[in-house]
Amino acid sequence: MNIESIGVVRSDLVDPGDAPRQGDEGAPDAWLEIDEAVRSGLEGIQTGTELLVLTWFDRARRDVLSVHPRGDMGRPEIGVFLTRSPDRPNPIGLHRVTVMEVGRGRLRVGPIEAVDGTPVVDIKPVLGTVDER
Amino acid sequence: MNIESIGVVRSDLVDPGDAPRQGDEGAPDAWLEIDEAVRSGLEGIQTGTELLVLTWFDRARRDVLSVHPRGDMGRPEIGVFLTRSPDRPNPIGLHRVTVMEVGRGRLRVGPIEAVDGTPVVDIKPVLGTVDER
Repeated sequence: MNIESIGVVRSDLVDPGDAPRQGDEGAPDAWLEIDEAVRSGLEGIQTGTELLVLTWFDRARRDVLSVHPRGDMGRPEIGVFLTRSPDRPNPIGLHRVTVMEVGRGRLRVGPIEAVDGTPVVDIKPVLGTVDER
Repeated sequence: MNIESIGVVRSDLVDPGDAPRQGDEGAPDAWLEIDEAVRSGLEGIQTGTELLVLTWFDRARRDVLSVHPRGDMGRPEIGVFLTRSPDRPNPIGLHRVTVMEVGRGRLRVGPIEAVDGTPVVDIKPVLGTVDER
């Protein structure tokens, strides 16, 4: 099955070693530059919109099935599907962000722990409760 | 970029027309049958664990960028990235579920609105607040 980049993360975070593990652990804001071919899919997104951004960790290892939780070698390994490790069979990153600014074909969002150059593969709204839909 | 199935949804829901729009709108429980090659990635998942299941809507249209919200033709179209429509450039489904039962290489989870045969591409834990990690 073929998954395609719809854009790219433009961030001051360059070194994966500097990236926090989760957005809410001190990650910065970043621009999402969205490919021209799919930009009309952004229609309606505004400053303040809460989104889920899905990325593709293209540097990740895909043959890892068990990890030490949060990289702590003192803790027993658990399955990757019970972790948010980027190393997993399909290295999809999931980031809950708020839109800070809407530009031409790009969104300023944060916090997001993905490094500069990370492909974006999907954007979804955060769903409220059933009666808010 | 290549995304691979890690398993499949086994559900009594067969017709996409019968599927609710979201899990919490009356969707049933279903089995996730996980491929033997990646089963060790499930280690640690228990009854009661809350998970995010990522699926691949293999019947979706990938050339749709705008839709009427919730299929209501009376409402103006908005970009697909502000909707959970399965029709989108990368048709990834995101389902928040609770584990009801853990079997050999399979998990009973619900509620989940994906139809029988839908490929599963990733499983992630629901993250609590920072101080719970």
